[in-house]
Amino acid sequence: MKIPEVESILELNELMDTFDLIKPVYYKDDRIMLLDQRQLPFKEEYLMIESPEEVATAISSMQIRGGGAIPIAAAYAFLLAKRQGLSSEKMEDLGNLLIGTRPTASSLRRIVDSLQPLANDGVESMEKAVVQFISGKLQNEIDIAEVGAKLVNDGDSILTHCHAGALAGCGYGNKTLGIFKLAQKQGKKIHVYSTETRPYMQGARITTWELMKFDIPTTLITDSMAGYFLSQGEIQFTLVGADRIAGNGDVVNKIGTYPIALACKDNNVPFYVGAFREGVDLNVTGGEEIPIEMRDPSDITNFGYLRLATPDVDALYPTFDITPNRLVSGFITPWGVISFPFESNLLEVFDE
Amino acid sequence: MKIPEVESILELNELMDTFDLIKPVYYKDDRIMLLDQRQLPFKEEYLMIESPEEVATAISSMQIRGGGAIPIAAAYAFLLAKRQGLSSEKMEDLGNLLIGTRPTASSLRRIVDSLQPLANDGVESMEKAVVQFISGKLQNEIDIAEVGAKLVNDGDSILTHCHAGALAGCGYGNKTLGIFKLAQKQGKKIHVYSTETRPYMQGARITTWELMKFDIPTTLITDSMAGYFLSQGEIQFTLVGADRIAGNGDVVNKIGTYPIALACKDNNVPFYVGAFREGVDLNVTGGEEIPIEMRDPSDITNFGYLRLATPDVDALYPTFDITPNRLVSGFITPWGVISFPFESNLLEVFDE
Repeated sequence: MKIPEVESILELNELMDTFDLIKPVYYKDDRIMLLDQRQLPFKEEYLMIESPEEVATAISSMQIRGGGAIPIAAAYAFLLAKRQGLSSEKMEDLGNLLIGTRPTASSLRRIVDSLQPLANDGVESMEKAVVQFISGKLQNEIDIAEVGAKLVNDGDSILTHCHAGALAGCGYGNKTLGIFKLAQKQGKKIHVYSTETRPYMQGARITTWELMKFDIPTTLITDSMAGYFLSQGEIQFTLVGADRIAGNGDVVNKIGTYPIALACKDNNVPFYVGAFREGVDLNVTGGEEIPIEMRDPSDITNFGYLRLATPDVDALYPTFDITPNRLVSGFITPWGVISFPFESNLLEVFDE
Repeated sequence: MKIPEVESILELNELMDTFDLIKPVYYKDDRIMLLDQRQLPFKEEYLMIESPEEVATAISSMQIRGGGAIPIAAAYAFLLAKRQGLSSEKMEDLGNLLIGTRPTASSLRRIVDSLQPLANDGVESMEKAVVQFISGKLQNEIDIAEVGAKLVNDGDSILTHCHAGALAGCGYGNKTLGIFKLAQKQGKKIHVYSTETRPYMQGARITTWELMKFDIPTTLITDSMAGYFLSQGEIQFTLVGADRIAGNGDVVNKIGTYPIALACKDNNVPFYVGAFREGVDLNVTGGEEIPIEMRDPSDITNFGYLRLATPDVDALYPTFDITPNRLVSGFITPWGVISFPFESNLLEVFDE
């Protein structure tokens, strides 16, 4: 489905209202409305942001998260800044502030780099650039859902890990939820197994919450149980997102993805990865070249203020792992499914 | 090392005091002293049990746990009953009460069946049977440590999952900790990665606590991180216990063992399983014949009184998974390492 072209916030919001979305962020009456993801799944509360700089704070504090949603929030921050008449110098400060929240996020840097040059143009020009960026994302999410839903069969139980759903994108469903929603809308009976995703619990807190919002039958399991259900023949299809994809098809995704891919291979269950343009890095030859970020292990040893683990024990928290390309069945993209050999096929689709 | 024969509680306690143990349960002054495992790792408190029936309550409430420690507590309950002069009828009730706490635990049933016939004999006869049972376990744990420590190399980082250490046996170290302790005592520099073991957190709460007690360098990771550290070459050896082992060498162990074994295979890291006689079931041809117990999934959705997951989400909690024999490098037993082909080699060692 091709969405109509939009040129203003009004048109964008009208267009978005025709879909069943869970919007992580939207723009209304010169305010940025931002779903506070830290309060999920217990409370659904939108924060009202009236100053562009507050968006940076919201990203830093994980009120908004996900590689797709953060650039959208950043784009709205530029629009708000322009409407408030910020000088081009202040707009540059804003851009640096935003990039500083996630220095390694290439998609965030890209939107800042593309909006900053419009600092001296009129408001309409900034507004048009922002809404076209977001409607382009919506189109991408619709396209990937159409490609992915074809791979889902009636009666399938689907495994997913971590969260690459609506709140990590523009609200339609990003790389996973949109596919599940559309498959169900097509009349296919599906059931999704969601891992809890230790240690940050994105699955237990967000993925399952989104799935239940759309009445998709959902079973929560610990990360360690995926292998069991795969070996019992309970799962027919696995779909995850990706933080970064190397030119050879190696996948850097949330810690725990690699053992799931191994268990899929061992049980002949297809393991698919959803991919947009911004996640694919053709300059990187293999996954081993991508540095794995180590985070503060207090998320492992504590749950909020509650201590879980033996006092003073050392812990390590690698955020991602690397799934070698040999374990990947294919990449689901807005432009079709990319199969083996990945090196040439990724190049063909993603080389700009 | 061969321990001397003991015939009384006094001799048994004297013998045990010559080792560096963490005793889950011991008998003193006609009381059963039981380490309350639910309070670990924050508080080390022994409960004083003065009535045999209270042992059943302690098993049911997980104050004592582990396939090795529970039969020891049950044996002490029989000794206490005999010392208190319980009738043989009441002794039978006690046996049924104990078996009822873990109806599928064959080692619990076996000790009850062997002590019940002594109900009409003198106290000395019961005492001798109980201490010989426990000193036999101690000998087994010393033997398995000697066999296993030979496989550990200086500088090895070792991965373990769940808990098969001191508190799950007589206190020496059961199938894992005894091996780590002895290897370190032999001057080998080792480092143990312990998974947290969702959802009950045996690794975060007990395995790491035991390792730190013996000053063994320890790193806590989530279950989902084992694959990452294996793929990075950070781990040279993996050792787990087993709930049950089928005649063909398939291993039923704590949920999450199977994906760890897959990741070991994928990275050419040896995957060993510690095994005593009572865990091996030669009557079962393959792992698929062993029913997997499903537990109350509130351990996944909640942490104590704290809700973790999306309200009302369905969850499933299979306690164990099945690791196929093709992923097992060998079984470490008190009688040596059992290698492939497992069917004949297990039969040779364990057929009674």
